[in-house]
Amino acid sequence: MSADAPTDHAGLVVMGVAEADALLASQSVGRIAFVADGEVVILPINYRMHEGTIVFRTSEGAKLEAGARHASVAFEIDGWDVESQTGWSVLVKGTAVEVLTDDEANALFDLGLRPWAAATEKRRWVRVRPDEITGRKIV
Amino acid sequence: MSADAPTDHAGLVVMGVAEADALLASQSVGRIAFVADGEVVILPINYRMHEGTIVFRTSEGAKLEAGARHASVAFEIDGWDVESQTGWSVLVKGTAVEVLTDDEANALFDLGLRPWAAATEKRRWVRVRPDEITGRKIV
Repeated sequence: MSADAPTDHAGLVVMGVAEADALLASQSVGRIAFVADGEVVILPINYRMHEGTIVFRTSEGAKLEAGARHASVAFEIDGWDVESQTGWSVLVKGTAVEVLTDDEANALFDLGLRPWAAATEKRRWVRVRPDEITGRKIV
Repeated sequence: MSADAPTDHAGLVVMGVAEADALLASQSVGRIAFVADGEVVILPINYRMHEGTIVFRTSEGAKLEAGARHASVAFEIDGWDVESQTGWSVLVKGTAVEVLTDDEANALFDLGLRPWAAATEKRRWVRVRPDEITGRKIV
């Protein structure tokens, strides 16, 4: 850690915006959290970045409902090395919106995002529009 | 996947309780989500299981405040193989409580849980008491 790297109250190094953006573009699995029926839930999603937003496919269920009601959500990716006790995380706070127009959906199909669980068809798309992107790391 | 494995609405295989408990005991990094100042946040934590609860160390900050006000929280662990597009996740819904008695804190110190970010001392402990533990997997 360089002596002038900014750290937060817990001593973690604060990531720059470019580094956080690059990590978001480099990963394909993250986790989305939101409040459903008064309870906080965290669900893993297979995602892509598209025009600065996080997009993922879903079927009926809590994640789609979160999109339909424009819920405040958090999205997180991270990477850890237990051996060296180092790692990083990126947290996105944003708003979930369902993708409703055909033009939008067609653009997303071109991303090549395929659901991993193929037993049911996931026809719907949800987009998370970031309000804030922050990253922390332990180096 | 065996033909009789229970699946959820998205086609994911529903994990049994014993499998979810074993995964919780086998990991050391997870993520906690809660509502802070009206916004959902997801933060990674280095944790241990202790008497059926999730415990982690923290300093002043949002995670400790969540414990102090007995917040409803979610805790998640997962493991993914991007190549084979398989993986699993365990979701714990529960309540965060700060550990306040010396007896409790002493028992937790014996777990050998050390904060990875050593720049600041993390003197406080938070315990998440599970209300519900569920697991899903893509096999």
